[in-house]
Amino acid sequence: MAVQTVASTTDSVNLGPAAALSCRECGHRVPLGPVFACEECFGPLEVAYDFSGYDTEELRKRIEAGPANIWRYAPLLPVPADVADKPNLNPGWTKLVKADNLARELGVTGGLYVKDDSGNPTHSFKDRVVAQALEAARVFGFTTLSCSSTGNLAGAVGAAAARAGFRSCVFIPHDLEQGKVVMAAIYGGELVGIEGNYDDVNRFCSELIGDPAGEGWGFVNVNLRPYYAEGSKTLAYEIAEQLGWELPDQIVVPIASGSQLTKIDKGLQELIKLGLVEDKPYKIFGAQAEGCSPVSTAYKAGHDVVRPQKPNTIAKSLAIGNPADGPYVLDIARRTGGSVEDVTDEQIVEAIKLLARTEGIFAETAGGVTVGVTRKLIENGVLDPARTTVVLNTGDGLKTLDAVADTGLTATIRPTLESFREAGLV
Amino acid sequence: MAVQTVASTTDSVNLGPAAALSCRECGHRVPLGPVFACEECFGPLEVAYDFSGYDTEELRKRIEAGPANIWRYAPLLPVPADVADKPNLNPGWTKLVKADNLARELGVTGGLYVKDDSGNPTHSFKDRVVAQALEAARVFGFTTLSCSSTGNLAGAVGAAAARAGFRSCVFIPHDLEQGKVVMAAIYGGELVGIEGNYDDVNRFCSELIGDPAGEGWGFVNVNLRPYYAEGSKTLAYEIAEQLGWELPDQIVVPIASGSQLTKIDKGLQELIKLGLVEDKPYKIFGAQAEGCSPVSTAYKAGHDVVRPQKPNTIAKSLAIGNPADGPYVLDIARRTGGSVEDVTDEQIVEAIKLLARTEGIFAETAGGVTVGVTRKLIENGVLDPARTTVVLNTGDGLKTLDAVADTGLTATIRPTLESFREAGLV
Repeated sequence: MAVQTVASTTDSVNLGPAAALSCRECGHRVPLGPVFACEECFGPLEVAYDFSGYDTEELRKRIEAGPANIWRYAPLLPVPADVADKPNLNPGWTKLVKADNLARELGVTGGLYVKDDSGNPTHSFKDRVVAQALEAARVFGFTTLSCSSTGNLAGAVGAAAARAGFRSCVFIPHDLEQGKVVMAAIYGGELVGIEGNYDDVNRFCSELIGDPAGEGWGFVNVNLRPYYAEGSKTLAYEIAEQLGWELPDQIVVPIASGSQLTKIDKGLQELIKLGLVEDKPYKIFGAQAEGCSPVSTAYKAGHDVVRPQKPNTIAKSLAIGNPADGPYVLDIARRTGGSVEDVTDEQIVEAIKLLARTEGIFAETAGGVTVGVTRKLIENGVLDPARTTVVLNTGDGLKTLDAVADTGLTATIRPTLESFREAGLV
Repeated sequence: MAVQTVASTTDSVNLGPAAALSCRECGHRVPLGPVFACEECFGPLEVAYDFSGYDTEELRKRIEAGPANIWRYAPLLPVPADVADKPNLNPGWTKLVKADNLARELGVTGGLYVKDDSGNPTHSFKDRVVAQALEAARVFGFTTLSCSSTGNLAGAVGAAAARAGFRSCVFIPHDLEQGKVVMAAIYGGELVGIEGNYDDVNRFCSELIGDPAGEGWGFVNVNLRPYYAEGSKTLAYEIAEQLGWELPDQIVVPIASGSQLTKIDKGLQELIKLGLVEDKPYKIFGAQAEGCSPVSTAYKAGHDVVRPQKPNTIAKSLAIGNPADGPYVLDIARRTGGSVEDVTDEQIVEAIKLLARTEGIFAETAGGVTVGVTRKLIENGVLDPARTTVVLNTGDGLKTLDAVADTGLTATIRPTLESFREAGLV
């Protein structure tokens, strides 16, 4: 297999504190390499670290003196220590916005914050995860960065590859809207349309990884997935540091594959173990669109497994009908005392407008999902409005303009004061 | 006049180090107030400061310890000292990207940087200037934030007003593209379409300012213009600080009204006077689109005055045919040893693609203008490739997708390895 032609043992691999890959299901450990499934049980592999030898206060100082991007957390990520010196998009350290206007509308009294990841270089949280995959790709000797995508990921991979001097080849369904094609194609990499739907694209990518034609290719969300996924930990680190090294009481996280939510939990647990924050209970809430709510459905039914759904929602960036990390999300929501909820497309649109009109943040549909779910959870008495709450906005409204296309002019007037007065605006 | 019903003397006004308004033409000084034209000569008023009493090293430390946004420079801006505590979008401190790949393509050996203002909250530099106008509006007791706009400014005003709890009312030509209307309307303020072109919109706004109907209204780029314009100084401060408190040798700045370029020069001069950077020569280059190049035309003809043009270019955010600060731009370009140049729409598109493919930065058309002009100036031997050069990207490509709509798929294939191989991508 192509993946075995590159460095694949921990000894020859410098990914900072990353020590091995460990199976999330059976705990079987393998050396760091471009592999993603356990050879024993086919469970997902994730990065295991060696954080021994860190002094808490030294580590805190080192982080605080670090750059205003995710690399301030390099000691906690699967990246070489000199990562910040290599060309990459330097994502992260996005604003944690104290959302007092939104809090008033929702009746939150304990402090409400929006973690606004639309401030990333290509305006979605995907820049965080792609940046990790890129470093792994460098270390494993890949020369092409690749992925299957229908949106945010395509742009994030294209941009990161361009800046890092990698070739990129991104696969998308051939009939995507023109705007989305432009956003992915502009970075000059190969952008290949596949005659078929997103499932067909994914199937094809899996075939390509096992074929000589895919030799030297790092698929950020397939053979580099264990590293890629760790990027979401930085959301947890930043939230805690931006709150003054404190855990929030409640976090509302969108669910696509569920990976982001599980890694945020992993990140918070690490902060506790490292002594960077005081240990205290926190609740994690998962947010889905009703039109693609396999995890929410399982949660409400009290199931441990997630039954796949055929997505039908405007929240395209969350439209994964068979979320790989679904069972882990259920586990985390239940363990922390959180829950999983969903909202309709109409509620998503309302929530996008609510966030824009209260805080001046124009969110992608995924942000409408988290804000809408937050509102619903408060109304249902599930989320405690007297507690510190962080809501994630993972993308930018400019990428999903269609969802709010009904937004328009308040009035149309002639260029005269008379016409202005007649419009009743003063 | 409506503007005289609110506080209008310096004594009652706390705008930090701002001491008065001073006429750029005749030097006549008036108290700080919501006025923009000299009562003596009708010249433009600008903010004059009292920076006496600043200790250079204390000031530097204070700035470096400040927030990661424009308010780190509050001691140098017309804002109250507690500005960072008031709800606003906290723009600025955007990335200064070391653009080594682009440098190689352009043959720059002295260090090439892109100041990427697409990282601002509404993804253009307008957030910087609107944030200043907002603080002035608060101080002068305005309750409605307004402007005329055809794009970036509308969104920046709508978002800033929403977050700050101001009413907003933005005027645009009624026949703008739907996408641009959505980007401005999403923040929930009044968005009024005017039956007419942009000139008609501006004329109407001028009328409204003098009418009782406009009482309590702060037009960010009209009666608040002196404060608004100062926001562009922060680009100069950030560039110098991000270069390690050093002046670059050359800066390439887009020209719309010309205000940004003149305020960048003002900011650099202040840094020198305050001792925050070592005094050394720097050259400022102005960049226009050929389809709206009144300043470039005047520069090349050796004129001191700028003859208005009717804009016809894809660089809509720079399409001001009669730029108010045109003569000052000519003066600065000549005084610093820079120049003013323009590029065709085709060169703009090429430059957008060049920047995206080399650095992973997707720029607005205005960014295509500055990168395109930089290339042209190097080819013509005007810009020295052996010197440190900073190129401004003032906006985001997601807002001008139409300009690069020809960008598309590299190939379309069936979801099989055979079809992939036939496409010749490996």
